[in-house]
Amino acid sequence: MNIREAKIDDFHRIWPIFHEVVKTGETYAYPQEATKEQALKIWLDAPRKTYIFEGNGQVLGTYYLKTNQAGPGSHVCNCGYMVPSEARGRGLATTMCEHSQKVAKELGYKAMQFNFVASSNEGAIRLWDKLGFETVGRLPKAFNHPTKGYIDALVMYKWL
Amino acid sequence: MNIREAKIDDFHRIWPIFHEVVKTGETYAYPQEATKEQALKIWLDAPRKTYIFEGNGQVLGTYYLKTNQAGPGSHVCNCGYMVPSEARGRGLATTMCEHSQKVAKELGYKAMQFNFVASSNEGAIRLWDKLGFETVGRLPKAFNHPTKGYIDALVMYKWL
Repeated sequence: MNIREAKIDDFHRIWPIFHEVVKTGETYAYPQEATKEQALKIWLDAPRKTYIFEGNGQVLGTYYLKTNQAGPGSHVCNCGYMVPSEARGRGLATTMCEHSQKVAKELGYKAMQFNFVASSNEGAIRLWDKLGFETVGRLPKAFNHPTKGYIDALVMYKWL
Repeated sequence: MNIREAKIDDFHRIWPIFHEVVKTGETYAYPQEATKEQALKIWLDAPRKTYIFEGNGQVLGTYYLKTNQAGPGSHVCNCGYMVPSEARGRGLATTMCEHSQKVAKELGYKAMQFNFVASSNEGAIRLWDKLGFETVGRLPKAFNHPTKGYIDALVMYKWL
């Protein structure tokens, strides 16, 4: 298993994961109907770094890292992680999150923030909690879930 | 006094206000050294709407409105307001914030969120509080203030 920076040529292998995750509308604040071109912009162009997690020739996950706020907020980064359904339950998100914290520190960031964690995403919340992230905010009815309707979103934060 | 949508030709009158506010590094999460071109992108191009507040031929203030998160978060908007130093203390931010809430509702938004209010910005916090915004998050040491160092930033929120 190996985590390395994604190249533009990797995108055709990232896209099915992005599409699978985003089309559900259950976890990410991206348009559910995002096209491949929009996904490329969101996941590879806009972030500062994008990584791909490979094992046995398969893409087991991907994550991005970017500066969360410019200027006086630029010491805090933000990350997003995706694991395809067939690779879930094996701790890969933990591995990626730990990797991203190491990368963040190397890049000089002091903290990491998740801006918009759907309160229904209990697995993710439990995981970030275990990895030392604190719930520092709760946005009332800020997440429009496809089946649950307007639910709260959490802001989670860790000083690195 | 009149609040109207800003046109590209208004930008040369908005820029001195933007520059005055942002160069202090005390309130906005923009690069302190942002150029006029970057400011145009930030304040006029990226937002969904930008307004200008005029009185006696002067620009008394400006604000933008944009969607805060895409997809499942797109019913929540975000705004930013600026008043030049010579026009402060006259309640113009209140007028603009009330105007922006009306515009937001007309555009179909259900809530308004301020993502990154420096905890040192007591005047603004008191004002948003008075206008019905609730502090729903506190980001520890997320704001690097030019004289106070790392201070907390608040997340404020109002269901419209």
